[in-house]
Amino acid sequence: MELIQRILSADPRAIARAMSLIENGDLKAREILKGIYFRTGQALVIGVTGAPGSGKSTLVDKLALAYRKLGKLVGIIAVDPTSPFSGGAILADRIRMQALYNDEGVFIRSMATRGHIGGLSHATREVISVLDAAGKDIILIETVGVGQDEIEVVKVADISVVVLVPGMGDELQTLKAGIMEIGDLFIINKADRAGVEKLEKELESMLALDARSENWKPPVVKTVATQGEGVSELIAAIHRFDQFRKASPQALQSRKYTVQENLIELLKERLLERATQQDGIWDKIQVASRDVKARKTDPYTAVEEIVRDLA
Amino acid sequence: MELIQRILSADPRAIARAMSLIENGDLKAREILKGIYFRTGQALVIGVTGAPGSGKSTLVDKLALAYRKLGKLVGIIAVDPTSPFSGGAILADRIRMQALYNDEGVFIRSMATRGHIGGLSHATREVISVLDAAGKDIILIETVGVGQDEIEVVKVADISVVVLVPGMGDELQTLKAGIMEIGDLFIINKADRAGVEKLEKELESMLALDARSENWKPPVVKTVATQGEGVSELIAAIHRFDQFRKASPQALQSRKYTVQENLIELLKERLLERATQQDGIWDKIQVASRDVKARKTDPYTAVEEIVRDLA
Repeated sequence: MELIQRILSADPRAIARAMSLIENGDLKAREILKGIYFRTGQALVIGVTGAPGSGKSTLVDKLALAYRKLGKLVGIIAVDPTSPFSGGAILADRIRMQALYNDEGVFIRSMATRGHIGGLSHATREVISVLDAAGKDIILIETVGVGQDEIEVVKVADISVVVLVPGMGDELQTLKAGIMEIGDLFIINKADRAGVEKLEKELESMLALDARSENWKPPVVKTVATQGEGVSELIAAIHRFDQFRKASPQALQSRKYTVQENLIELLKERLLERATQQDGIWDKIQVASRDVKARKTDPYTAVEEIVRDLA
Repeated sequence: MELIQRILSADPRAIARAMSLIENGDLKAREILKGIYFRTGQALVIGVTGAPGSGKSTLVDKLALAYRKLGKLVGIIAVDPTSPFSGGAILADRIRMQALYNDEGVFIRSMATRGHIGGLSHATREVISVLDAAGKDIILIETVGVGQDEIEVVKVADISVVVLVPGMGDELQTLKAGIMEIGDLFIINKADRAGVEKLEKELESMLALDARSENWKPPVVKTVATQGEGVSELIAAIHRFDQFRKASPQALQSRKYTVQENLIELLKERLLERATQQDGIWDKIQVASRDVKARKTDPYTAVEEIVRDLA
């Protein structure tokens, strides 16, 4: 396929086209992913998460810029928790640094999660593959919100960076406990604000309790993203973690999506595809839906009957 | 099964036991769900979402208390975005109102999302079924964070309440745009704070742009949850929405999980179960994982080969 060749030679329009096919669940996407797979596995995938207002976007921009100065090719994926209803990305109006948009070495894409179950990790992984095959050295995944999304992103990324800011209220402090364990590296952004030392102390004491610490003690890096302060320290810390994960992959195994988990997810989808290609199966699903709604049967029995009748 | 009978007669220990079986993915859970299904569909399921610090928990507590005074039986499920690594709920230390814990008419449960794809909506729906079959009139689902979780909860709940507070920063205002479209009803909590009018105006102007408004214009209710202020107005607004959704279910169709979507998710799981019961299939998945890791093949081709070989 011509599109595969164009992706492998890093044509930005081909990359964008492939991503649209992936997002739309187009069958052509699968052929493209097959064709490019042998060229993947080279990029370092960095997931950046944190509460709204922590300055993640600015940090990602500055990080991208710094990597560009080091001669790296960069991809940025902003994952938006878009409503499944409108399809519009809430960050559509967000203004990225013009310097990045004008740089051919940077590919930027917003991705809507669209509310599909399993959709985020699946589509994100596939979009990463495209950027990876296109020769990007660094792929930055930025998410909005703190929740299931973030956990999914962690599992897809090679390194998970959690961004905090001083002066968050007590309620946000509670939240931190939830994102604590997904961080390979912590950033205190807006580190020119009051409360840095307090946050740092709390963070360190939480990290001390972390069972992982015998393997990898997540470093805390202070940044002022708007000024570019701390970005080179951040890159150094990312580099150290990258060395660690390559040296002892088993230490991180339970925290990242394994190839096997990915295969099983794909298997589920293909099995459904195969089943629903059989004649009359959609009719059966319709009838079952009606009966379940009327409480003539329950969904578990209804599905068992559908499966039993499958060839 | 004795457990089914005990659930139907609202035995709190039986309810708790069933929920544990569901959370652990125990096969017995399926039999229980089959046995209780005919008694479900009566409860009103209210999903409460909002940014951390918006006072959701207090509001849920006060709402539960008010419904109790109206003679309703109440279930509360707090969905915690627990790390998939530790399994510990971050809100474990949260103190609910003692009055609720001492009331036999209220069943309270924390649920960890555990990072499973599709796990939240699945397990939440099943836990709701148990409370519903046990005769709870009102089931309150409270989530933490703003992201995929909330979207899933909306689809499971009959009514989605979004809690906002005055004085959120501009960054949080942006976030609101994302959760705007999932709200059937909006609450401005902590309405004794400055900035209420500003927030209300912004909210109203956003709602005016909402395409849904021809069907249902989400009302805005002001509360001071800590004082119990506005709770009866909230209950009245919930009641009005409940009447609306019963009168015109098609107006909300695209926003809620349909019975059919639920059936298809169950079907995927059963198909995987059936496939992996075949001899040698796990060996094939292992071999495929190794080959994919070594990039001898790609995951898509590997899965297609596994599916092709299935009986």
